[in-house]
Amino acid sequence: MQTRITSLLNIRFPIIQAGMVWVSGWKLARAVSDSGALGIIGAGSMKPELLREHLQKIKAATAAPFGVNVPLLRGDVEELFKVILEENVTIVFTSAGHPGRHIEPLKNNGCIVVHVVANVKQALKAQETGCDAIVAEGFEAGGHNGVDELTTLALVPQVADAVKIPVIAAGGIADGRGMLAAFALGAEAVQVGTRFAATAESSAHELYKQKIIEAKDGDTIITYRNIVPLRALKNPFMAQVQKEESEKGMTRERMMELHAKGRERKGIFEGDWEEGEFEMGQSSGLVKEILPAAEVVKKLMSEYEEAKRKLL
Amino acid sequence: MQTRITSLLNIRFPIIQAGMVWVSGWKLARAVSDSGALGIIGAGSMKPELLREHLQKIKAATAAPFGVNVPLLRGDVEELFKVILEENVTIVFTSAGHPGRHIEPLKNNGCIVVHVVANVKQALKAQETGCDAIVAEGFEAGGHNGVDELTTLALVPQVADAVKIPVIAAGGIADGRGMLAAFALGAEAVQVGTRFAATAESSAHELYKQKIIEAKDGDTIITYRNIVPLRALKNPFMAQVQKEESEKGMTRERMMELHAKGRERKGIFEGDWEEGEFEMGQSSGLVKEILPAAEVVKKLMSEYEEAKRKLL
Repeated sequence: MQTRITSLLNIRFPIIQAGMVWVSGWKLARAVSDSGALGIIGAGSMKPELLREHLQKIKAATAAPFGVNVPLLRGDVEELFKVILEENVTIVFTSAGHPGRHIEPLKNNGCIVVHVVANVKQALKAQETGCDAIVAEGFEAGGHNGVDELTTLALVPQVADAVKIPVIAAGGIADGRGMLAAFALGAEAVQVGTRFAATAESSAHELYKQKIIEAKDGDTIITYRNIVPLRALKNPFMAQVQKEESEKGMTRERMMELHAKGRERKGIFEGDWEEGEFEMGQSSGLVKEILPAAEVVKKLMSEYEEAKRKLL
Repeated sequence: MQTRITSLLNIRFPIIQAGMVWVSGWKLARAVSDSGALGIIGAGSMKPELLREHLQKIKAATAAPFGVNVPLLRGDVEELFKVILEENVTIVFTSAGHPGRHIEPLKNNGCIVVHVVANVKQALKAQETGCDAIVAEGFEAGGHNGVDELTTLALVPQVADAVKIPVIAAGGIADGRGMLAAFALGAEAVQVGTRFAATAESSAHELYKQKIIEAKDGDTIITYRNIVPLRALKNPFMAQVQKEESEKGMTRERMMELHAKGRERKGIFEGDWEEGEFEMGQSSGLVKEILPAAEVVKKLMSEYEEAKRKLL
């Protein structure tokens, strides 16, 4: 399955493991990359020196290509990029912000830059800025999410029609059927988050992995909706946020106060059911077992072929 | 392309035109049915005797199978069913409510009953009640919408895994790529709304059709979110509702007051840009021209084949 994305990233399978806070350190990224897909280290939950440690470890462990995801709204984004360039990382995924001026030093150092977008306007902007590809991420995705609420099914073909650079589909894809659907819509690779979060090599807490396995179709919810929407599993903390939102509304300041207090760490990494945020996508209802990451890659490919054979 | 849905409904193509208020009268349904897909008369905007008139006209005009969509929260739903049975309609799509006790008289009279659902629980309930098939409709769909906000990409495979009866995918599907994606996810037919709303035979106002053609990806919005969510184009009236919702919240009573005052008629049928509701899905960004309905069916099929040829 060769596409412009597999050529660009020099990978065997058109599958990318999403960079996820507290989930995708060097162990998960390495396992995915060694399997022939692209593993991504999620820098969102790492201080610059911790990121350096993960980069050095993955480079020592594998010669396969891997990437780093950087949320651009981090205050210390320049320091993260400094580490990334010093450690000769060649693939950078940027999200949650405008790639703009950040692209230039990365491109000058030979980096491949892929930006995550949630509407057509952002996609055109990323292309104009010089990004090599984009991830078009739909409303069903876990974690931070676009305010336009465009779903993967509606977003991907509209983005694919608008840009010349290749499109990676994300949001709602947890098996080979979703992967085939993404390709039908014009994507040249898929980015998969939730399913890789529930793997043996994911650094998340066991309770968080278990909650993915148990989640039913309607169990995730969007909070902080008109500020920085976030999709997570319904739990006591999300219920509290939702109650406050519906009763009093939510300001950016109050959102920062609630969300920023290490809630992602509490939920995903520490398994604190009462007080943490358990970020996951609507596709959690499709994830039924915790497997090694390489098995997930293998399954996605075989499920893709099976779904394709069934097409009329 | 034979599936359990084409056999059940005795149609040539696995495409169903959604029943849409103020849009799908006998003219649109007849044009779609004559083309080999399934046309549906939207009873939601018709009094019982007007529905009878439409039924008599379509029966006089074509021998092809057609359906009627009935929103079950209508107060006079029993009268609508009486007309449907008296006029020997054989295909009934029910939505917005529980099929429950309504199914029995319909089934006893040989009707095929298909219920629209927005989550797995509703799908199982519909199957248990005796429905012959279900429509799994995602968050990207125009008009009334489920509170779980499950997208088509996440919903269809979870529903297809849960039920034995065949699944029709709806929401976000406006071209052959979306249709292929739906089949990849396990659907055996697609239900298409917005693209058929912008056809020559649609009874909607010309301005409404024009607005579909002009709509961009992020131009629709959900209002009345926690009551009976409704997706429509952003316009002055929707902005007013949204403002009120964010400032004061929205009660069911206030929603009825705002929505029920003929807003759908004003927008869709009368083209009142200031005061009406212009219901349409996120796929409106994919609709670029007003065509005869039969052309849309032909294009969906050829686009499907083209998208399938491009798959790796």
